[in-house]
Amino acid sequence: MKGIFVTFEGPDGSGKSTQLQLLADRLIKQGLDVLVTREPGGTPISDEIRRILLSPDHQEMVDQTEVLLYAASRAQHVHEKIIPALEQNRIVLCDRYIDASIAYQAYGLGLDLQTVLAVSRFASAGLQPARTYMLDVPVEISRRRLLERSQAFNGEGLDRIELKGDDYHQKVREGFLTIAEQERHRVRLIRADRTVQEIADEIAEDFEKLVHPDSQVRV
Amino acid sequence: MKGIFVTFEGPDGSGKSTQLQLLADRLIKQGLDVLVTREPGGTPISDEIRRILLSPDHQEMVDQTEVLLYAASRAQHVHEKIIPALEQNRIVLCDRYIDASIAYQAYGLGLDLQTVLAVSRFASAGLQPARTYMLDVPVEISRRRLLERSQAFNGEGLDRIELKGDDYHQKVREGFLTIAEQERHRVRLIRADRTVQEIADEIAEDFEKLVHPDSQVRV
Repeated sequence: MKGIFVTFEGPDGSGKSTQLQLLADRLIKQGLDVLVTREPGGTPISDEIRRILLSPDHQEMVDQTEVLLYAASRAQHVHEKIIPALEQNRIVLCDRYIDASIAYQAYGLGLDLQTVLAVSRFASAGLQPARTYMLDVPVEISRRRLLERSQAFNGEGLDRIELKGDDYHQKVREGFLTIAEQERHRVRLIRADRTVQEIADEIAEDFEKLVHPDSQVRV
Repeated sequence: MKGIFVTFEGPDGSGKSTQLQLLADRLIKQGLDVLVTREPGGTPISDEIRRILLSPDHQEMVDQTEVLLYAASRAQHVHEKIIPALEQNRIVLCDRYIDASIAYQAYGLGLDLQTVLAVSRFASAGLQPARTYMLDVPVEISRRRLLERSQAFNGEGLDRIELKGDDYHQKVREGFLTIAEQERHRVRLIRADRTVQEIADEIAEDFEKLVHPDSQVRV
């Protein structure tokens, strides 16, 4: 495979989706062939699984079901969309991937880390991103941004995962920080309490170095 | 847990659902508290997963997605419905369970047996049936019954799994036979090319012995 697989991770309200789109726009302007996609979802089957996962009606969902549905969605997404795009030499920018399972399910829900990893690896056929941009903000800030976004939709905007409490989201953040610490060669931890433009420039600069490690040129 | 967990396995067209219902009717007439359920499905979330799994529109589904969706459906079903029923001392009769994953996915699709087992055990929290009735018929017979059933519905009755070829269904049958051979303490292999009544009597007699091992009384 010749393409480049890049993931964006971080809590809802960290600005990761905005940053993913800004990097995509910049690369497309340079004439590069970019696929923007997201988890859970990204294919018709994965989108149907996403609806089951996020429906606020499904409060009775047990943790094992959640882990397995995220993995099922990932399996279809990786095999049907990401691997074929990489084989066509495209740049794939994906909103969430395995790190999200580790942070939300192993750290957040307290499930066995090795089991969550094994299920994720079975789903993804071992495909790892070349680079992960992990956007970090304190839980108070990401939660406030989410609530503001929700109120703009009459309070009906929060999904089943977003509705969980602050304790859970604190553990999820610690999970992300631990992964960033352990996988420094792959993960760039990005402080997300700055302006959108500052963050976008930092990501673009790092991505340029990833693609052209010997170049002095800034994007 | 004080209840009794019994599963019925075998290919579509083997008559297992009919036999499950006949045993249920017999036990209910005896005044016993019986829960009849099935995989995939059995809870609202599992039923939504079942629809994704069986839709003939989903020909692009990769094997890993199939394994993980069956496991997700099972996780919800076991935790939300089967375990609580067993804790209330009920008899649970379930149409398909882990043996179906082994036969259809490990043997039929050729996926790694240990991985399929590990995913199934994670989903089911290790819950095993006390007894499994495995109905066996040659593939020609089960396929012919299915096609007849389908033609009665204008040829629109077959789901995504049923639409797979005879080779696949032959491997699935061999999988079921291997499990029956390896797990003789749990599995009763039932020759299903006999009358409905003959099969029902054999199952009822065995079930009576399971519940009252010292009794000479026939059901």
